[in-house]
Amino acid sequence: MGRVYLDHNATTPLRAEARAAMIAAMDVVGNPSSVHAEGRAARGLIERARAQVAAALGADGADVVFTSGATEAAALACAGRGLSGAMIEHPAVAAWVDTTLAVDAQGRVRIGDPARSVLQLANSETGIIQELPEGLAVCDATQAFGKLPFAFNWAGAGMMLVSAHKLGGPKGVGALVMRRGSDPAARLRGGGQEMGRRAGTENLIGIAGFGAAAEAAARDLAAGRWDRVSFLRDRLEEALVGGSKLTISIGKGLRRLPNTLCVARPGWKSETQVMQMDLAGFAVSAGSACSSGKVRESAVLRAMGLGEDVARSALRISLGLDTDEDDVMRFAESWLACESRYRARVA
Amino acid sequence: MGRVYLDHNATTPLRAEARAAMIAAMDVVGNPSSVHAEGRAARGLIERARAQVAAALGADGADVVFTSGATEAAALACAGRGLSGAMIEHPAVAAWVDTTLAVDAQGRVRIGDPARSVLQLANSETGIIQELPEGLAVCDATQAFGKLPFAFNWAGAGMMLVSAHKLGGPKGVGALVMRRGSDPAARLRGGGQEMGRRAGTENLIGIAGFGAAAEAAARDLAAGRWDRVSFLRDRLEEALVGGSKLTISIGKGLRRLPNTLCVARPGWKSETQVMQMDLAGFAVSAGSACSSGKVRESAVLRAMGLGEDVARSALRISLGLDTDEDDVMRFAESWLACESRYRARVA
Repeated sequence: MGRVYLDHNATTPLRAEARAAMIAAMDVVGNPSSVHAEGRAARGLIERARAQVAAALGADGADVVFTSGATEAAALACAGRGLSGAMIEHPAVAAWVDTTLAVDAQGRVRIGDPARSVLQLANSETGIIQELPEGLAVCDATQAFGKLPFAFNWAGAGMMLVSAHKLGGPKGVGALVMRRGSDPAARLRGGGQEMGRRAGTENLIGIAGFGAAAEAAARDLAAGRWDRVSFLRDRLEEALVGGSKLTISIGKGLRRLPNTLCVARPGWKSETQVMQMDLAGFAVSAGSACSSGKVRESAVLRAMGLGEDVARSALRISLGLDTDEDDVMRFAESWLACESRYRARVA
Repeated sequence: MGRVYLDHNATTPLRAEARAAMIAAMDVVGNPSSVHAEGRAARGLIERARAQVAAALGADGADVVFTSGATEAAALACAGRGLSGAMIEHPAVAAWVDTTLAVDAQGRVRIGDPARSVLQLANSETGIIQELPEGLAVCDATQAFGKLPFAFNWAGAGMMLVSAHKLGGPKGVGALVMRRGSDPAARLRGGGQEMGRRAGTENLIGIAGFGAAAEAAARDLAAGRWDRVSFLRDRLEEALVGGSKLTISIGKGLRRLPNTLCVARPGWKSETQVMQMDLAGFAVSAGSACSSGKVRESAVLRAMGLGEDVARSALRISLGLDTDEDDVMRFAESWLACESRYRARVA
């Protein structure tokens, strides 16, 4: 039996459409800033991808600035603006803001001054979805893009950041979407690329992949393909919580991403669970993947008021469009077997 | 007859080795920061590419930090350090330094305090090569990497920046190489990637392509494949200067990159030349491609003390490893025909 990948919130497999677009872009020789025919062909690919991303985001008429990922987009959107956010924001956002906003037990962030605040649309660890207040300065839509219906033009946020590799595009590409006329201080200077907002020769192949992936993701979302995933996630949740009395599901019953399940089994450490599941053939995660292998207690769960025992024993299982019933049932069986061995050991 | 691409200093076609490595990396599912098997496989690709780039650069034992390109590497190396440089530096470097260092008529930069200076190894417009002083703070080796034999470990510079797409790798990937223990202030924050020096999920596919391209470029360089290119460049130079009395070659007789030719034909504007050559089927450039289509006078040539008439009529022809004699002879014929029409028109 092959391995089962249940860590789609960390990164997703490359979609066939993105792969094809990237391979096609490999034959385009020019620099998008060159004025000759080769340069114009490269520029054409980038502008096509920009239109695809804008359409997928419901951002017609807005400006889409391509970046090297959501981390760079977050820096471009947030650095030096004196914004506030909650501790549940991704570290790439939290690094640039005052993390003073309160979070309630349901994971909701309380925002007093939207124009000076940043808020995620959905949390990467719990999948919990936020209501965006009108006039929000910056929205991190990285985890929601492709999984949740929304439109930048209706979301009421001035800027929104997204990433390609969370929806089947390549790693190392993202975008900052902003209302036309916004003028963030460029962090990369030199050439005049991206209308002076982001210097540097564009990641042509990656951007082509992002455009194709965004278009395909929007189509899958509109076709309701996540409904089946949501159903499987709920079955998995029932299996884990039903099969282990001490296990709790964080976000159960709340508005969540269709693919995300966050369970905690107090006492059984997150990193132990991740390693045991890895040996059993399953890729899952103990929160955000971005901390370079270091597994610590979840700052997200602590911010929601959950205890250290919960925050240190949480496991994130994130499904993809290709996850099937056999995958989740095999995972449940394996995890419950490990859990009962753990129970026997500490008894 | 197909088009002839003679703008390799703007960007190069993707090498077959890079293409193959990138397509192979498309099948790797994990996030390099994830601890499970899929994450470790992705991490393995990145560390392999890092070793390939370090070996190609003669930088064993140094730290190689992958970035989204030389522009980001320049910002990471130079921002906030109070460095000085010359006006011949690339805009991505010049943006962060005091451009007060003098340049002589041979294009040489005079450096008083290496520890507080940045210097390019070779110029993108003229190909002119600099002698690096011992103890230099930062060296921009973007144009030299892959075309000129050098080793970071022997160059005497504390940091060196390079780009993938100038040597047959993909656009949107670069690196900052630094002596072990250097500690630049991270400009992208969030996750702990690249030992805390550069947050953000890595451009896995692009980095794999960079590693393969660097390895192939180093092999081609060692095999002497640029000698033939240098010979063709010299033949082209003779043809253009010999065929047009008013044309001068900038850098003739100086130590130059093997592939770069910069000629000026006072009166005949650079942008007109580029457009006429484009229509005739040749991709060439009027200096750095990075100014988003805007063609202005060359700051590089002005800094060398050349007049406005020269700076506004300069053309950069940059050959690649696959350029053949027919390509350059056809270019010479076409350019000389246009030049003589121009001469007739203004007579």
